[in-house]
Amino acid sequence: MARSRRIGEFELIARYFAPLARGFKGARGLKSDNAFLAVDRRHDLVVKTDTIVAGVHFLAGEKPELVAARALRVCLSDLAAGGATPFVYQLSLSLSRGWTERWISRFARGLAADQRRYGIVLCGGDTTATPGPTTITITAIGKVAHGKGLGRGGARARDELWVSGTIGDAALGLLAARGRLKSAILEKRYRLPLPRTTLGPRLVGIARATADVSDGLLADAGHIADASGVAVDIERDHVPLSVAAARIVASTPASWATVLGGGDDYELLIAIPKRKRAALHAVARACGVKVTHIGDFRRGAGVHLTVAGRPTIASRRGYVHF
Amino acid sequence: MARSRRIGEFELIARYFAPLARGFKGARGLKSDNAFLAVDRRHDLVVKTDTIVAGVHFLAGEKPELVAARALRVCLSDLAAGGATPFVYQLSLSLSRGWTERWISRFARGLAADQRRYGIVLCGGDTTATPGPTTITITAIGKVAHGKGLGRGGARARDELWVSGTIGDAALGLLAARGRLKSAILEKRYRLPLPRTTLGPRLVGIARATADVSDGLLADAGHIADASGVAVDIERDHVPLSVAAARIVASTPASWATVLGGGDDYELLIAIPKRKRAALHAVARACGVKVTHIGDFRRGAGVHLTVAGRPTIASRRGYVHF
Repeated sequence: MARSRRIGEFELIARYFAPLARGFKGARGLKSDNAFLAVDRRHDLVVKTDTIVAGVHFLAGEKPELVAARALRVCLSDLAAGGATPFVYQLSLSLSRGWTERWISRFARGLAADQRRYGIVLCGGDTTATPGPTTITITAIGKVAHGKGLGRGGARARDELWVSGTIGDAALGLLAARGRLKSAILEKRYRLPLPRTTLGPRLVGIARATADVSDGLLADAGHIADASGVAVDIERDHVPLSVAAARIVASTPASWATVLGGGDDYELLIAIPKRKRAALHAVARACGVKVTHIGDFRRGAGVHLTVAGRPTIASRRGYVHF
Repeated sequence: MARSRRIGEFELIARYFAPLARGFKGARGLKSDNAFLAVDRRHDLVVKTDTIVAGVHFLAGEKPELVAARALRVCLSDLAAGGATPFVYQLSLSLSRGWTERWISRFARGLAADQRRYGIVLCGGDTTATPGPTTITITAIGKVAHGKGLGRGGARARDELWVSGTIGDAALGLLAARGRLKSAILEKRYRLPLPRTTLGPRLVGIARATADVSDGLLADAGHIADASGVAVDIERDHVPLSVAAARIVASTPASWATVLGGGDDYELLIAIPKRKRAALHAVARACGVKVTHIGDFRRGAGVHLTVAGRPTIASRRGYVHF
């Protein structure tokens, strides 16, 4: 134990922190992105904490408004995957030595715009100085009908796997932000996540399991499969791409690895029984969100990728935190 | 606005973040340490977020168990001041580059011990890597009867100001930890806060206003006075001292500035109407906590210190975050 320094994030959580959550069912063994607090007979609160660090999770020098949006939206995406409607949030802002009041003013303006957009309000937090990079932790709290919160566990063999929107734009957009390819549209998709906050709550009663695509499509589909105790087959050519992304993979097929393995799309993966297809289409249409059937669950374990129906070896490695 | 970089924490919050909490009453204008979420007709959730940074809020090289205890207990102290009973918490752990599994194992052990001690349980969070110092954010959630949460506002002219335990030990203990005086007892008081979690919830129905002593006795008494719109007179010679602290101020009277201005005591300041004296004594006795009458509220504004009844000029400056 003493010397093996670089265990992964999931292992770290399982080994040291999951035991601390034992005995509190709403923590779901820390295998869920969200915690569920049963506060009365009608509602559960859904709680999600996320930390972003300058230079690690957002580009140092990023516009403060976009940093604010990213900090809040990565949490809102998890609440959406949990089926929850946004309620309130707490903000911890640790400011690096070079902070200016102008930066904070713009950061606050970004939060204000997103509060209006997503119907959430600041309820408290902490501000402090740090000798390290600016670090932002948001704990977002949403509401869902009691016992109805969605999560990764719950998919069954013969369920279908659907995904909202398009996949890969953010990961390709990060390459664009780093100057490694050119696309203003994709770069914006990376810089400004669009959490599916209207779709998420409407999936309650339709989806058996959900996850947001934060670590990467294959990784997050794998988390659903693992948590549900089933396997999932995904057909690459069914994965929905934007026009810009489709053009890139057409000219550079190696970009598929970025599309399927990259993260930060903040789309929703949705496991449904076949009979819920019409219901899923109805709520997606009501939200103006496209949904696409990309795979199927079966007995077994793991994520299995096919290309035009033929099995392929795929790394499900998403974004690795350590 | 653009160039004035060093405004204070309270001003920063008032100018940029309080507007973001407008319209949500439970945020109390961000003037309270706690947020109050009315979740049903019987209970409110009390929410508190606190961030500690290695080298800033705890000594780099501190024992991981003590870091864990500090991170959790500073939040528990605020919940206690809010009259709340601990419920669950979220943990964001940003690990500096030199992290070892052994450190995490000991950190988790510290959390486990405090979970048992204080009846709180981990329900989620985030772990990430940072190029900066290890940074820990805890969002603790407690419960209080609906509408009964305590805070800084509410003290009235002619109310009495009481304080639990002894004052100044932690600030003197910090000097001891830095080798500037010798006292193992005081050093421990600094390293290991003892939040008044049993007393706090019992103050509901007795106290008109409360605060924990985190910024310093005069500063925190001042926060109560400001939030309540009254003045408070504090008699220095009534401030309860430990034997160790009393010895230090007897030999070095200049240490009074440390005692009254230093922070981190995590005792409770309690404003009560005179008729609640007996009730306060009863609950304090039941908790095994000493409480001392140190001052009185009156019309006016500010904190006013007397020494043996004679007015004195006192800086209420507590711990300054920026």
